[in-house]
Amino acid sequence: MIIPIDRQKKEPLYSQIELFIKDAIENGTLKVHTKLPSIRQLSKDINVNRMTVETAYQQLEAAGLIEKRLGSGTFVLPHHQIEQTTSDKVDSQWPLWQQAPQKRIRQRYTNLSAIPHNIDKSDNPINFAGGIGDPQLFPINEFSKILQKVIKRDGVIGLSYGEPNGYLPLRNTICQIMTSLGTSAKPENILITTGSQQAINLVMHLLLKPGDIVLTESPTYSGALDLFKASGIKQIGVPLDQDGMQLDIMEKMIQQHHPKLIYTIPTFHNPTGISMSGKRRRKLIAIAGKYNIPILEDDYVGDLRYDGCGQPTLKSLDTGGRVIYTSTFSKMLMPDLRIGFIIAEGPVYNCLVNLKCLTDLATSNLFQRALESYLSIGRYQSHLRKTKRLYRKRRDCMVNAINKYLGDCASFHIPTGGIYIWLQLHEEVDHKVLLENCTKEGVVYFTGLELHTENHQLKNFIRLNFAFQSEANIEKGIKRFSEVLNNLSSSQS
Amino acid sequence: MIIPIDRQKKEPLYSQIELFIKDAIENGTLKVHTKLPSIRQLSKDINVNRMTVETAYQQLEAAGLIEKRLGSGTFVLPHHQIEQTTSDKVDSQWPLWQQAPQKRIRQRYTNLSAIPHNIDKSDNPINFAGGIGDPQLFPINEFSKILQKVIKRDGVIGLSYGEPNGYLPLRNTICQIMTSLGTSAKPENILITTGSQQAINLVMHLLLKPGDIVLTESPTYSGALDLFKASGIKQIGVPLDQDGMQLDIMEKMIQQHHPKLIYTIPTFHNPTGISMSGKRRRKLIAIAGKYNIPILEDDYVGDLRYDGCGQPTLKSLDTGGRVIYTSTFSKMLMPDLRIGFIIAEGPVYNCLVNLKCLTDLATSNLFQRALESYLSIGRYQSHLRKTKRLYRKRRDCMVNAINKYLGDCASFHIPTGGIYIWLQLHEEVDHKVLLENCTKEGVVYFTGLELHTENHQLKNFIRLNFAFQSEANIEKGIKRFSEVLNNLSSSQS
Repeated sequence: MIIPIDRQKKEPLYSQIELFIKDAIENGTLKVHTKLPSIRQLSKDINVNRMTVETAYQQLEAAGLIEKRLGSGTFVLPHHQIEQTTSDKVDSQWPLWQQAPQKRIRQRYTNLSAIPHNIDKSDNPINFAGGIGDPQLFPINEFSKILQKVIKRDGVIGLSYGEPNGYLPLRNTICQIMTSLGTSAKPENILITTGSQQAINLVMHLLLKPGDIVLTESPTYSGALDLFKASGIKQIGVPLDQDGMQLDIMEKMIQQHHPKLIYTIPTFHNPTGISMSGKRRRKLIAIAGKYNIPILEDDYVGDLRYDGCGQPTLKSLDTGGRVIYTSTFSKMLMPDLRIGFIIAEGPVYNCLVNLKCLTDLATSNLFQRALESYLSIGRYQSHLRKTKRLYRKRRDCMVNAINKYLGDCASFHIPTGGIYIWLQLHEEVDHKVLLENCTKEGVVYFTGLELHTENHQLKNFIRLNFAFQSEANIEKGIKRFSEVLNNLSSSQS
Repeated sequence: MIIPIDRQKKEPLYSQIELFIKDAIENGTLKVHTKLPSIRQLSKDINVNRMTVETAYQQLEAAGLIEKRLGSGTFVLPHHQIEQTTSDKVDSQWPLWQQAPQKRIRQRYTNLSAIPHNIDKSDNPINFAGGIGDPQLFPINEFSKILQKVIKRDGVIGLSYGEPNGYLPLRNTICQIMTSLGTSAKPENILITTGSQQAINLVMHLLLKPGDIVLTESPTYSGALDLFKASGIKQIGVPLDQDGMQLDIMEKMIQQHHPKLIYTIPTFHNPTGISMSGKRRRKLIAIAGKYNIPILEDDYVGDLRYDGCGQPTLKSLDTGGRVIYTSTFSKMLMPDLRIGFIIAEGPVYNCLVNLKCLTDLATSNLFQRALESYLSIGRYQSHLRKTKRLYRKRRDCMVNAINKYLGDCASFHIPTGGIYIWLQLHEEVDHKVLLENCTKEGVVYFTGLELHTENHQLKNFIRLNFAFQSEANIEKGIKRFSEVLNNLSSSQS
């Protein structure tokens, strides 16, 4: 044990020791029944006379905080825990650098739209708000077995830092998956990241500086919006129609604002579920080329397609290193894997690899190896088939429930993949109150309000995740939502 | 399977399909014996006539790339792989944004001092270069069992996103460990990070902007230096003596340069092994208070002490939220856990939590739970005792070997903890040649050169990791090093 003592202080050493231990007991970090170090050991650890420690222990024992048990040592006694209030300081008590001059920065990093795991899970509401698939589908048992196998097979190497750009067999396997999805990639152009959120972060830090402008769909993924906001990047939204971003408007915005990056989710867009048409995809690449703007393509659920035929990724249409592509295994497999990847060509690739290393040194080698093993024994494809079957049913279930309960008061497009339905309410309501009332009734969703976009046309939308809940809960949740909505509408009118 | 086809192109659809599959086979992403999708399936997937796919397959078969096997499908045939050269483009072939205007940025993110896992492991050299402990000590089997247990116990919850600031029981356990080391902390002031590299990154992004100045020890941890450099932060080094940073010099630097952050490794400093004296620690806190500068304390191996009594952390001496503290389980346990943590008070804490979420959403919940379980069943303390016993022996072994083989030509201080010896060579040598020659002889280390500091006094130092190798290898490695050094000296003179 180390105790910070100060020989310059007037306060005697024994009472400094006493006070430190007393505080630790009272704030609960030294738990009841904890054995304290012996007097000999502590006096050695902190280089004081044994008598000093003995005196401190005697004082603590006299105060009823600890107890010496002959032959077994000194132990912390049960006590009434005293609430400390040091963290309730008002702002002015913190150092200046934590205060006013940093207000701008604090504003950036607080009041962010909720990253969607902040819902109070204790109430166990019907949850249409989240950004992940159904945890019940996570192949946990298989994954557990594979972890064992990989640890046994690879030993310490599997738990040491691996290659900076990621585990080569995993990069190879990803290339094969990407090829089967129509996107040719080589392992030396793949960078494994800690989820695709890190990928967005890396690209942003590499290509943009505070004050630069990024074009995105309007609305777009809240985690990207928050990240741009927090980094001082200005975001400008391009409106969507059924075929994706409206490129004529975009081109005017480019001429006016000179953006440094186009961030897009062309397939099963978050939150609207819209997929960009093939024609638009080609045109987008051409525009990016004409104006020399890099594209970051976020393909977060590209493989979760339920109907129709797939569109090629922007990456597959790009022959000149214009598109940086990112995807993740979070939605299709498990978020806690924390494994996403980037595909990039040209000089930017090595920069991204270096930046990734500087950011967190490495993504878990063990998880990379386990994922590779899972993918290469072919479980992934059958897991994906099963997942798609189920999510398609849930989408249909939600579509039917909306038609049944909300047919008159809302409209939407049926998404052909992904996990979201983007619902437009016909009547204007107070969305803050609506969400509050819904939460009380045990149903939550993600409101367009939180996308804090400038686009007023979006104010009457909500985002519903149809993949997360069972069909029974989807039906029940939409019914509850419609009741709350009707109550609110009639009380407002 | 999806294939990017373009109906606007003059090239017929069948040949677009043919070309895509041909490329995929030739660059190896469609492996030999892979089964291609049926004609019916592919035509549905990409919405073309079956005849179109059939024609493409016929062409590919005629070219000897695939084979139709009656009743079982169409398969990729063995072939001579053709090396592609698209990634060998010269710079001018990349989009403009990948070229000249980005040169400044590219310079920042390339030519970084090697993050120390870039050594070619195939040669299996005696490795004094790394920044981690001995992988043979990783408690792999126990960890594997705990992973099983936690997956069984927690199910899907253990593999979903957890609390944004980290798994509460782990934060509680960390508080207990910190208290036993003399630093009182509360769980609501702890933020779990993806290693301490991420912690440094978060603090830097929160408090500094490009052009700002950070004061560090000179020399200091290369990963922090690289990160500062890559982010456009100016780093100024404060020279060390045996008691740590020379604070008189530091104060003058503060007056002159107005730094926005002091980054320090006060305990078993990397690379020098020096620990800051208690008196200096208190004075540093006072200076930081006087000039309103936050301190980032990097305690990467604070618990690996072999002799003497420990110094209090800066954090434990700080009563006013001046010090942001970071530590990690990478050195004491396993780097691949990717778990470090921050202790911070005041408004800055929530900003760091938000920034962490924006950066990579979450640190693996499963690993956090497994670590908590490992720590709370008390294995950690015994693991740490065992590790310290072994590393102390290895330190002594390296000290003896240096005295024996390099006694006349080098000097150093014996570190009382950590994993590094910082060795000063008496005679000036060409360090690039020295390292090359050593590598040829199968011994590698980390040269002070790579710390690219302005401080010329540091040019004749090398850093040796004594924790990574067995005693036999330490003796052998130092002997080899001395031979290479002698040969080089005599050839130079």
